[in-house]
Amino acid sequence: MKRIVLFGTGNVATHLFEAYKSSSKFKIVQVFNHSEKSLETFKKNVPTTTDFTKVEDADIYILALKDDFLSQFANRLKTTEALVVHTSGSVSMDALKHFKHFGVFYPLQTFSKNKKIDFTGIPICVEANTEKDIQLLKELASEIAENIFKITSEQRKSLHVAAVFVSNFVNYLYTEGESICKENKVPFEILHPLILETASKAVNMSLKEAQTGPAKRQDQAVINSHLELLNEEQQKIYSLLTKSIQNLHGKEL
Amino acid sequence: MKRIVLFGTGNVATHLFEAYKSSSKFKIVQVFNHSEKSLETFKKNVPTTTDFTKVEDADIYILALKDDFLSQFANRLKTTEALVVHTSGSVSMDALKHFKHFGVFYPLQTFSKNKKIDFTGIPICVEANTEKDIQLLKELASEIAENIFKITSEQRKSLHVAAVFVSNFVNYLYTEGESICKENKVPFEILHPLILETASKAVNMSLKEAQTGPAKRQDQAVINSHLELLNEEQQKIYSLLTKSIQNLHGKEL
Repeated sequence: MKRIVLFGTGNVATHLFEAYKSSSKFKIVQVFNHSEKSLETFKKNVPTTTDFTKVEDADIYILALKDDFLSQFANRLKTTEALVVHTSGSVSMDALKHFKHFGVFYPLQTFSKNKKIDFTGIPICVEANTEKDIQLLKELASEIAENIFKITSEQRKSLHVAAVFVSNFVNYLYTEGESICKENKVPFEILHPLILETASKAVNMSLKEAQTGPAKRQDQAVINSHLELLNEEQQKIYSLLTKSIQNLHGKEL
Repeated sequence: MKRIVLFGTGNVATHLFEAYKSSSKFKIVQVFNHSEKSLETFKKNVPTTTDFTKVEDADIYILALKDDFLSQFANRLKTTEALVVHTSGSVSMDALKHFKHFGVFYPLQTFSKNKKIDFTGIPICVEANTEKDIQLLKELASEIAENIFKITSEQRKSLHVAAVFVSNFVNYLYTEGESICKENKVPFEILHPLILETASKAVNMSLKEAQTGPAKRQDQAVINSHLELLNEEQQKIYSLLTKSIQNLHGKEL
């Protein structure tokens, strides 16, 4: 059985902790965090510490920490024989290169604390400085997930940017849709099937073929009438995305 | 059994025709279109015509036509006792007010010709000039769908704008995500689970709570490194949506 120390108590750390609870091959033996308070929910299930000098020996250290905190934190961690990995989409593997064994273990999903996650379908992107460590990370990943990818730091960075578009920005557009509904006293729930179908089309057919709406149809009368309904911020978004869709599809007409 | 004449051969018309094939209460007795060619696929299943003077008598005329075509078309249609409805999200019911019975039958979904649609979960928004006709449209809708809403023209228009945000614009962001992946030689399929989970969160939890990513975290280092990877058009979209997310969530920090 391989021993893991988990650093961090945020969304990713919380979901990873849950996922490895039932593993017989990998055991999280300790959770570290700089503040005592956020360790509260872990304490009843696992030993915890806030003291760098009391970090246990282990086979793998998983740093599930905020990006801007990661380098600073990695420098304070004592020299170790453990494989040290971070879980960030945007930080290069080299941020950990002062360790003997280092790598990345990046589950590509949007984690929220209050929503349960089934890791089975979540892609996990792994990277390490030796082939042996890549194998260890693949084993670690396959214990909870089915889709495991060996990805370079550069590829991971571009995946992370693409993820911002297809998830963070998409969620923001949902938010705008909800606020338009609220302002006009229409239940947002009417749009739920449309949201799910749009996502389902994206994974089942060509996105270009899936595109519908007034922008693609170059229906300027509808576009103008929509703009009249929107506030200034919404108008900016509507105009910019409409123009982009027209640029992409315009040549077809 | 009520008789229907369907006008149009586009995505909505095609899917409606399929949906009513198995109905015993409503029967599409004729399909009209101005061009002979697009009627080809219908001909083996139903009588068709391109001639306004040969439109059959029926209980309901469904005009599943392009928005900018609708008024002009409605004016050429002869006087009728039938309930005349259009299927558009953005055209007011009054576009048909020269008929004795008029209304709207708006299935709120993104239709693509090559993807089968199960109407059961699709919201259908109905509106008519008399209560009796609203009842008829509710019956018509409940023959294929479960979620039926009586909605005014104003509400429908705002729903349609919201739908552009949560579907058309969302699909475009998926397209940008795909193109970023392609440019960097990463399979877009890695992002499929993220796309589905983001949509699932939207219908199961608060959108504000569901928001994640560097914009919400105000992580300027990551934002800058992302911008470096993007082309000019992508940068504009990234900057605008990042700013909007920060405006919405900024006060929490």
